[in-house]
Amino acid sequence: MSQTYDDNNVFAKILRGEIPSHKLYEDADTYAFMDVMPQGKGHCLVIPKQPSRNILDAAPASLAAAIATTQKLARAVKTAFDADGVTVIQFNEPASGQTVFHLHFHIIPRFEGIALKPHTGQMEDQGVLAENAEKIRSALADML
Amino acid sequence: MSQTYDDNNVFAKILRGEIPSHKLYEDADTYAFMDVMPQGKGHCLVIPKQPSRNILDAAPASLAAAIATTQKLARAVKTAFDADGVTVIQFNEPASGQTVFHLHFHIIPRFEGIALKPHTGQMEDQGVLAENAEKIRSALADML
Repeated sequence: MSQTYDDNNVFAKILRGEIPSHKLYEDADTYAFMDVMPQGKGHCLVIPKQPSRNILDAAPASLAAAIATTQKLARAVKTAFDADGVTVIQFNEPASGQTVFHLHFHIIPRFEGIALKPHTGQMEDQGVLAENAEKIRSALADML
Repeated sequence: MSQTYDDNNVFAKILRGEIPSHKLYEDADTYAFMDVMPQGKGHCLVIPKQPSRNILDAAPASLAAAIATTQKLARAVKTAFDADGVTVIQFNEPASGQTVFHLHFHIIPRFEGIALKPHTGQMEDQGVLAENAEKIRSALADML
């Protein structure tokens, strides 16, 4: 199992604009967008712009920036969907469930009595993703 | 559902030394210790010393310190147990699975083919916790 960073991973392509994404937020160090295979309504992702495979090799400053944006998104999704809670998950290596090898934080709105769907499950409808993205951007705009 | 911080939560008591814990690491802003109801071998926790209920109300500096220590522990447990991966989880509010209302990051070593045990499952034997804690402290000492 390679522990190196592969510049052709999907999130690197998203950062380069080679693959479209439902953008939620961007600053100098981080980028946030919708997960296309959501484990729940409003599931989104935060990634640092600086390349790292996962938390094991990340530069501390990059990690600090990513968690700061994760906090913004956690607050935003809670408001956007009137969620009861938020789950933050960060997978490292395949044994943990990591499937894209660019450091990312999952931010998943939670609702009483609704379990998470499986990780890397079904592709969500693009219209639904666009609609949820708009709700999150609106909540972020009210916060910032 | 109250969103306030209750100073009598178990982790606040651990920070005050009123309840024992298997300490792994401590610095000015954070404290790391073994989870007594592990979801897998070597499951440990990182908390900021500054009071916050979860990621939703945490001070950014406190959160940055917590993720920096989480990275240290993620690397340490991977080495200590020769793990294949590491899962980092952070629950916010009961709907997400949060049971102790002081911000904490779960760091769980992962092994190919071994699923996570349920959150808040069975209490682990204290001797096993002590032994695993020693392995993690030793890995940390080699890293720092």
